[in-house]
Amino acid sequence: VNPKVAVVMGSKSDLPKMKRAMEILDMFEVEYEARILSAHRTPDLLIDYAKGLAKRGVEVVIAGAGMAAHLPGAIAANCLLPVIGVPISHGPLSGLDSLLSMVQMPSGIPVGTVGIDNSANAAILAIEILALKDERVRERLERYREEEKRRVSLESIDGDDQG
Amino acid sequence: VNPKVAVVMGSKSDLPKMKRAMEILDMFEVEYEARILSAHRTPDLLIDYAKGLAKRGVEVVIAGAGMAAHLPGAIAANCLLPVIGVPISHGPLSGLDSLLSMVQMPSGIPVGTVGIDNSANAAILAIEILALKDERVRERLERYREEEKRRVSLESIDGDDQG
Amino acid sequence: VNPKVAVVMGSKSDLPKMKRAMEILDMFEVEYEARILSAHRTPDLLIDYAKGLAKRGVEVVIAGAGMAAHLPGAIAANCLLPVIGVPISHGPLSGLDSLLSMVQMPSGIPVGTVGIDNSANAAILAIEILALKDERVRERLERYREEEKRRVSLESIDGDDQG
Amino acid sequence: VNPKVAVVMGSKSDLPKMKRAMEILDMFEVEYEARILSAHRTPDLLIDYAKGLAKRGVEVVIAGAGMAAHLPGAIAANCLLPVIGVPISHGPLSGLDSLLSMVQMPSGIPVGTVGIDNSANAAILAIEILALKDERVRERLERYREEEKRRVSLESIDGDDQG
Amino acid sequence: VNPKVAVVMGSKSDLPKMKRAMEILDMFEVEYEARILSAHRTPDLLIDYAKGLAKRGVEVVIAGAGMAAHLPGAIAANCLLPVIGVPISHGPLSGLDSLLSMVQMPSGIPVGTVGIDNSANAAILAIEILALKDERVRERLERYREEEKRRVSLESIDGDDQG
Amino acid sequence: VNPKVAVVMGSKSDLPKMKRAMEILDMFEVEYEARILSAHRTPDLLIDYAKGLAKRGVEVVIAGAGMAAHLPGAIAANCLLPVIGVPISHGPLSGLDSLLSMVQMPSGIPVGTVGIDNSANAAILAIEILALKDERVRERLERYREEEKRRVSLESIDGDDQG
Amino acid sequence: VNPKVAVVMGSKSDLPKMKRAMEILDMFEVEYEARILSAHRTPDLLIDYAKGLAKRGVEVVIAGAGMAAHLPGAIAANCLLPVIGVPISHGPLSGLDSLLSMVQMPSGIPVGTVGIDNSANAAILAIEILALKDERVRERLERYREEEKRRVSLESIDGDDQG
Amino acid sequence: VNPKVAVVMGSKSDLPKMKRAMEILDMFEVEYEARILSAHRTPDLLIDYAKGLAKRGVEVVIAGAGMAAHLPGAIAANCLLPVIGVPISHGPLSGLDSLLSMVQMPSGIPVGTVGIDNSANAAILAIEILALKDERVRERLERYREEEKRRVSLESIDGDDQG
Repeated sequence: VNPKVAVVMGSKSDLPKMKRAMEILDMFEVEYEARILSAHRTPDLLIDYAKGLAKRGVEVVIAGAGMAAHLPGAIAANCLLPVIGVPISHGPLSGLDSLLSMVQMPSGIPVGTVGIDNSANAAILAIEILALKDERVRERLERYREEEKRRVSLESIDGDDQG
Repeated sequence: VNPKVAVVMGSKSDLPKMKRAMEILDMFEVEYEARILSAHRTPDLLIDYAKGLAKRGVEVVIAGAGMAAHLPGAIAANCLLPVIGVPISHGPLSGLDSLLSMVQMPSGIPVGTVGIDNSANAAILAIEILALKDERVRERLERYREEEKRRVSLESIDGDDQG
Repeated sequence: VNPKVAVVMGSKSDLPKMKRAMEILDMFEVEYEARILSAHRTPDLLIDYAKGLAKRGVEVVIAGAGMAAHLPGAIAANCLLPVIGVPISHGPLSGLDSLLSMVQMPSGIPVGTVGIDNSANAAILAIEILALKDERVRERLERYREEEKRRVSLESIDGDDQG
Repeated sequence: VNPKVAVVMGSKSDLPKMKRAMEILDMFEVEYEARILSAHRTPDLLIDYAKGLAKRGVEVVIAGAGMAAHLPGAIAANCLLPVIGVPISHGPLSGLDSLLSMVQMPSGIPVGTVGIDNSANAAILAIEILALKDERVRERLERYREEEKRRVSLESIDGDDQG
Repeated sequence: VNPKVAVVMGSKSDLPKMKRAMEILDMFEVEYEARILSAHRTPDLLIDYAKGLAKRGVEVVIAGAGMAAHLPGAIAANCLLPVIGVPISHGPLSGLDSLLSMVQMPSGIPVGTVGIDNSANAAILAIEILALKDERVRERLERYREEEKRRVSLESIDGDDQG
Repeated sequence: VNPKVAVVMGSKSDLPKMKRAMEILDMFEVEYEARILSAHRTPDLLIDYAKGLAKRGVEVVIAGAGMAAHLPGAIAANCLLPVIGVPISHGPLSGLDSLLSMVQMPSGIPVGTVGIDNSANAAILAIEILALKDERVRERLERYREEEKRRVSLESIDGDDQG
Repeated sequence: VNPKVAVVMGSKSDLPKMKRAMEILDMFEVEYEARILSAHRTPDLLIDYAKGLAKRGVEVVIAGAGMAAHLPGAIAANCLLPVIGVPISHGPLSGLDSLLSMVQMPSGIPVGTVGIDNSANAAILAIEILALKDERVRERLERYREEEKRRVSLESIDGDDQG
Repeated sequence: VNPKVAVVMGSKSDLPKMKRAMEILDMFEVEYEARILSAHRTPDLLIDYAKGLAKRGVEVVIAGAGMAAHLPGAIAANCLLPVIGVPISHGPLSGLDSLLSMVQMPSGIPVGTVGIDNSANAAILAIEILALKDERVRERLERYREEEKRRVSLESIDGDDQG
């Protein structure tokens, strides 16, 4: 089966923060591939990879990177697919650097950025996009949201004063 | 024709910043509707609106707001469509407040955030999503990117020293 | 007895930071109820809850949340009671995100925001409000402030040079 | 008639930003008094003023100040009334300095802080507090919120594409 | 002997960061007194203390505080002595809050602010001020600076490549 | 007459912001000299100047600079006098850069920093230091503070509602 | 003559800020070429350009860009020449975004970053590098620095009090 | 052999962050010397050192410092060599203070600044500069970059779903 989502990260050290995206894609039974590719250290590989994505059937890209986080922007510049950026809180500036490097893209080449280290939200956003075409994904998304509601509404505070 | 994109903003004062999104959607001949709705001042209207979007055929939401910019998050909480947030630089904090209020969503309810005041990129991201299903949109996107390349590469610096 | 104060938080992980508010309300013998409700994951429950508060006799709401902390604003948008917000320092931005998401509300829907993680101050502010109507609460507040003064003025620095 | 609200500001230059609070209090027919008092330049006057507020029937204090904005905290330290702080965006740091100086109060002495320059919200929060005791104020608040909803929901975007 | 320097801090939790100032004053054999006083929890005590300083022969005040660090400003507002502020990095904002609360004082009431947690520099600045009147202090200061130069210039990097 | 205060600035463009310090020193009849000297463009001149200050009877240095504002630190490193730094809001970062470059000095070489562009406070702090030795300056300072109190307490808000 | 320096910018709107670099290179009679190339809108052109630089004799690259300023990093990733980055203060975040996007590069691919909008310093740094090989450039640099010293030391403050 | 690179740091506590630069210079067999010198505590030594560098054949300076990080600027002001600054994340502001103190230099005296704590990049930038004159260094740089590419492209994610 062809992957629908590409999960790309700038270095292996980003994996612990990007894992949650993969777990959620697994949970939704969405095919994906995961790659380590660097906008700066392997620019040619990255560009070839980005240019080949659409032909191979990939529909959404999730890209996580820290510091001067150019990875999602470099992919966005080399394909026509929606690119979702995950700023990683690597280094002393706690991800403020990667957030700004990702979200402040020039007009014409967007990166849809989610919260710092929040690869879960990147996966859900990818799933919302895929659900526009795929009824089964849409149904799973609906169920997921219902279960989340139930889970939160069952949380309770032991011993609170409820009059 | 049913609109494919909903462009929502929190107040009429956001319109000058959100206009570029509408112009780009027009340019791509993508049907959209534009609404002023406030997460805080018209919460019931907003929720009804968000809940009705999918049934009416809307596929992507673009939401712009300033300061404590809850609008895109409130829509995302009430529908299953991909929501793209545009932080507006309203007030003394230059949009850093709206950027953080938008992008730092809790896990499960993503807002794909673009740059401050950059509604153009919200429109292009919406178009990239629609292009996954609509061949005509995809072709226009390809042409737009080619034209952008040509336009930038024709820019020149008068009188530069080219040896 | 009806609760006078509602203490709401976005997730159970906020409890350690919100506990101090409950302890202070207990100390002042102010009836309260504590709830976990999410602006994004349980929006309908939250709105119903907010709309029902006044009828049940609640007079002040304390709401704590982290990151894109929309919870207090969502409650404020759905009731006429004073809402006190507690930004929680969850995640890499140390609560600057939740502070700005809370305090920068649009005109007409205020959230009276206290310091990051400072739920104690939310409780005291709630008590100051209740004291306007309730003589016994006012007396306890007076005593509390006197005792705080005494406590601080008895603190001393061992071995300091006092000439 | 005794004033119910005290509107205090650190210097006459804060008046343009604090005016909106007074206009809203006027609109709600809430009695108030306005004073210029400085935590640093007239500390004795300020303390006497703060200590005398409750006896004169004042129930809520609104205090606006810029830069190292100690005014609301100094009042809060010298009375038991709820104090609402308005950070003013005076000087090169755009009010981030006054926001932090106001909101980050030590435990026990809260300042309920509203958005930068947003004295309108300070007035509404004061009114929400007064409405707990005063039925007429509560009714006006209800009407105000209804009118705001109507006003926002009547805003429209000329020439938008509504399919 | 009368103390020449007053070292004041807002709470006992500031002591570990303020200790270095006291050690340096001890090293320079400058008489000082140390006090815990709060601008917000013991305002009357603080004001009496500040007003009495000059009469008792104190010449310089060092005041350390965290968060909305009003302590040095409150002392400066109530005496004519030079006040040196030490912002303490207490809480999630790492002292940026206390730095801005201290340094951005209104015109007429200065606080000479040193680096975050850098009470050593507050002590040295106090000593530089005292040295203007006291030859022995000036001589010790000269010696201290000479020794510091020697100490730094003797630091070496083991195994460095020195050609 | 020998100057008691040296007012130094990094470039002539700082003069409009530093002028207020000179006006206040004039008002207090304190002798001063003003110089333009750059830590980076005229390092040797600056060091000679700093080293000669004490011998010529200067007792306090006020140094204003923008951006990477090394000027006050460079003077402090080359003399034993108290140095007061004025961060200037030159350039896009609004003086946050100069504030941090000035206040965050290494242990042993303090710069007593005042608010951004607030050269008035640098002058007052210098006067507070000089007043420790000079009775006439102390008396003028007392009078100045009294007049400031009177001036602020006479400010009034036209048409305010005073019950 | 072959250009020794390439001055690249992301869009024509950066030209006013980048002009100073060109004027200084002209003043030093250093051959340069100026190009508008975008990391995102013309990625292939940019990469070809970067890869061809060394062969054409270019020795230093100066690259200016605003917002998510990937341009200098993209060039650095595709050549072995020293790349100097100029963050441009384009948009609401005043260049803090471009500064962080430029300076926080991953290990192995440096961008030597100068101050926001300070293309003059990029030119001087390029000249310092060229001066290592070119005696004439080194002499001009020496003269330039001497003249700067003279210029600054001749600046004076009219009417200052020089005792 | 004469050192080509000088690696200077403000205190021994910077050594762990600066070590990587030395390891890389060793790896490239570039001669260097390492020194601890302080802009503030040993200003005369530093200036003599900076002025003597060029005569001894040093071609590039790498200078690391924390907080008010004046060291690289002070060196740049006293020699004509290219100076590369490494901001060190010492203290509560995580290196934002040292980054701004370093990069925001006045026109005419540049410091080419690399990422916070990223002394590796300072070494590579120095090597890129040396490679302009030294064919052997250029060849090693080429090899290094090739190996980095290989190393990154061989990184893989165990158990990823590759269709």
